[in-house]
Amino acid sequence: MRVTHETGAAVVAPAGLEGVVVAETEIGDVRGAEGFFHYRGYPALELAAARSLEDVWCLLVDGELPGRAESAEFAERSAALRDLPPALARLLPEVARRGPTLDVLRSAVSLLGAELGWRPTHDLAAAELREQSLELCALVPTVLASAFRTRQGLGPVEVRHDLGLAGNYLWMLRGAEAPAEEVRAVEQYLILTLDHGLNASTFTARVAGSTGADLAACVCAALGALSGPLHGGAPSRALAMLDRIGTPERTEAVVREAVLNGERIMGFGHRVYKGDDPRSLFLRDVARGLGGDLVGFAERVERSVVEVLRELKPGRGLHANVEFYAGVVMERCGIARELFTPTFACSRAIGWTAHVAEQVAHNRLIRPSARYTGPPAPLPVPAA
Amino acid sequence: MRVTHETGAAVVAPAGLEGVVVAETEIGDVRGAEGFFHYRGYPALELAAARSLEDVWCLLVDGELPGRAESAEFAERSAALRDLPPALARLLPEVARRGPTLDVLRSAVSLLGAELGWRPTHDLAAAELREQSLELCALVPTVLASAFRTRQGLGPVEVRHDLGLAGNYLWMLRGAEAPAEEVRAVEQYLILTLDHGLNASTFTARVAGSTGADLAACVCAALGALSGPLHGGAPSRALAMLDRIGTPERTEAVVREAVLNGERIMGFGHRVYKGDDPRSLFLRDVARGLGGDLVGFAERVERSVVEVLRELKPGRGLHANVEFYAGVVMERCGIARELFTPTFACSRAIGWTAHVAEQVAHNRLIRPSARYTGPPAPLPVPAA
Repeated sequence: MRVTHETGAAVVAPAGLEGVVVAETEIGDVRGAEGFFHYRGYPALELAAARSLEDVWCLLVDGELPGRAESAEFAERSAALRDLPPALARLLPEVARRGPTLDVLRSAVSLLGAELGWRPTHDLAAAELREQSLELCALVPTVLASAFRTRQGLGPVEVRHDLGLAGNYLWMLRGAEAPAEEVRAVEQYLILTLDHGLNASTFTARVAGSTGADLAACVCAALGALSGPLHGGAPSRALAMLDRIGTPERTEAVVREAVLNGERIMGFGHRVYKGDDPRSLFLRDVARGLGGDLVGFAERVERSVVEVLRELKPGRGLHANVEFYAGVVMERCGIARELFTPTFACSRAIGWTAHVAEQVAHNRLIRPSARYTGPPAPLPVPAA
Repeated sequence: MRVTHETGAAVVAPAGLEGVVVAETEIGDVRGAEGFFHYRGYPALELAAARSLEDVWCLLVDGELPGRAESAEFAERSAALRDLPPALARLLPEVARRGPTLDVLRSAVSLLGAELGWRPTHDLAAAELREQSLELCALVPTVLASAFRTRQGLGPVEVRHDLGLAGNYLWMLRGAEAPAEEVRAVEQYLILTLDHGLNASTFTARVAGSTGADLAACVCAALGALSGPLHGGAPSRALAMLDRIGTPERTEAVVREAVLNGERIMGFGHRVYKGDDPRSLFLRDVARGLGGDLVGFAERVERSVVEVLRELKPGRGLHANVEFYAGVVMERCGIARELFTPTFACSRAIGWTAHVAEQVAHNRLIRPSARYTGPPAPLPVPAA
């Protein structure tokens, strides 16, 4: 494959840096052709089937799956960090009223870094950075649930320290304990989305990290990238497609019309996976386990979309991606659509902070070049 | 120069993407070997000598230097956008008390995007994005001055619409009009720092922009990168070196000791310029024009540091960089050191938003790859 060519001293990378290796990582890998991805060597789907979110979080942070004692210790420690610092708790309702939940989270993370006086990662020992990363990730669900309730005009719900991250998140959103199968479904969704190569937000976290910026600055930056519709902004739109279809028998007609109109069908196709997205296969099974009309409808839509796309866009290998069944699982578990992308941030923040720690440990400032393509310099400057 | 090699299908970029062209731009160029940089073809130093900040801002945004009528119109329009939205004005004092000014700015920009309901750049017409970018950049000095005064326990100062960006910034910081030569010195500093290739923060803005994220998200991300000590965090440390030296006759001894101790001398050396940094030469003249003991002292320190570095680190070509005389000019103009990097953000935000607009106009999602270097997968997952 010929993906670069040299112009004088510079190397010109392909658009979007596609296929260009810009970092080494031990956190995980995506093997698109095999439909396989893993965290630190462990197949992500097997981890989601067998382990708790906290265990896999620990794997990403500390590099090893915890034994029984370490597992309990990690769960306890991460749960203890869930309470909002008082100043942030005081500011959050006003912030929450001002904008969408993902923006609220970004503002809250920005405020958090200042409030806790987090110093540049450049100046931190690894243990200090680890502790900050646990605290930040432990706080994300608390911020989201608190902000969401404020926005809904609902009263606050106290953090529970006896539940896992997913259980406490659903508890705080609802003010009631969620059924165990819903907690586990959300937990498995979160495990499957902790990390996935150098997507735009993870790369953004590493670029910010390479300047030695503090952890809050790095996660703010990543949240900014995540908010883009070409990256994390799509799961609720996959559900919007289901709404638009309305009833199962309209599926094929609606999908066909949309494709013929040149619309992109949200929740289908992936830059890396050309066959089945392994996350989608797993989450389809999770959704089936939960059952319900929505799930049956979604499966019918999936089959129909794949067929129509195979016919109208042959050779493209468009399958349901993670967003499709992630949306179905979250909807089925009563998570509001406004929270779909923010909920994704609950898990991905764990991946981001692991990448920042790795970047900082083997750092070199990320500072690429641009090629100037405007009028030849120097032009004469006319007087004002 | 051999800077990449292929491993299978992937191309491995050099560390830090050094020398790798990742974007085309018409905004400007840095020619390190010549000690020359320009904006849209116009030599930046000539622009700083001959034009107002607003004219050069207009050049970056609209692609052309304004004529007389357009110049007045742009200045008036940008001045009219300086007032904080009421909700932000209400929240800002509480935010300002919670952390350093650069963090406050980041939180304020985050809040601003939500408050003004800025939609993804992905969905905006170019004219709408232009207007948002003017508004954001017009508000940065207001946010900084307001936050700084709150932190100092000083009362608020009303925005002035009859002054340029630099004049209003100094007015709001002091609550009094600054002498014309100080306003012009700060203005020239700002002109010289609007843009400078794909430094880490500008690149971060483009990566976030490539996801289609809204403008506030992109600038938040860039501010995160700017806050890193390896990028924007150094100008006040150049002044700290002057403090440490204390009196001119101690210069050589202190510098020699620091270099022999392996310390990096802040404000000297640059990744791109191996000769004189053109911004530093210009700002040295600006500082001389302002006069005063500090300036004479700084010049003596500069000479001494360059000599000592030439002797102790021969062949490295270490000269004063922009940070050194930028710090001297800001200190001489009464800008507090806490505001050095935030003041840099006043100008660089203009460059960032121009780059986001350019990225969005010719977009491709920036999504590079990583090379997995951990234990070979798949590892068996032990039961919990």
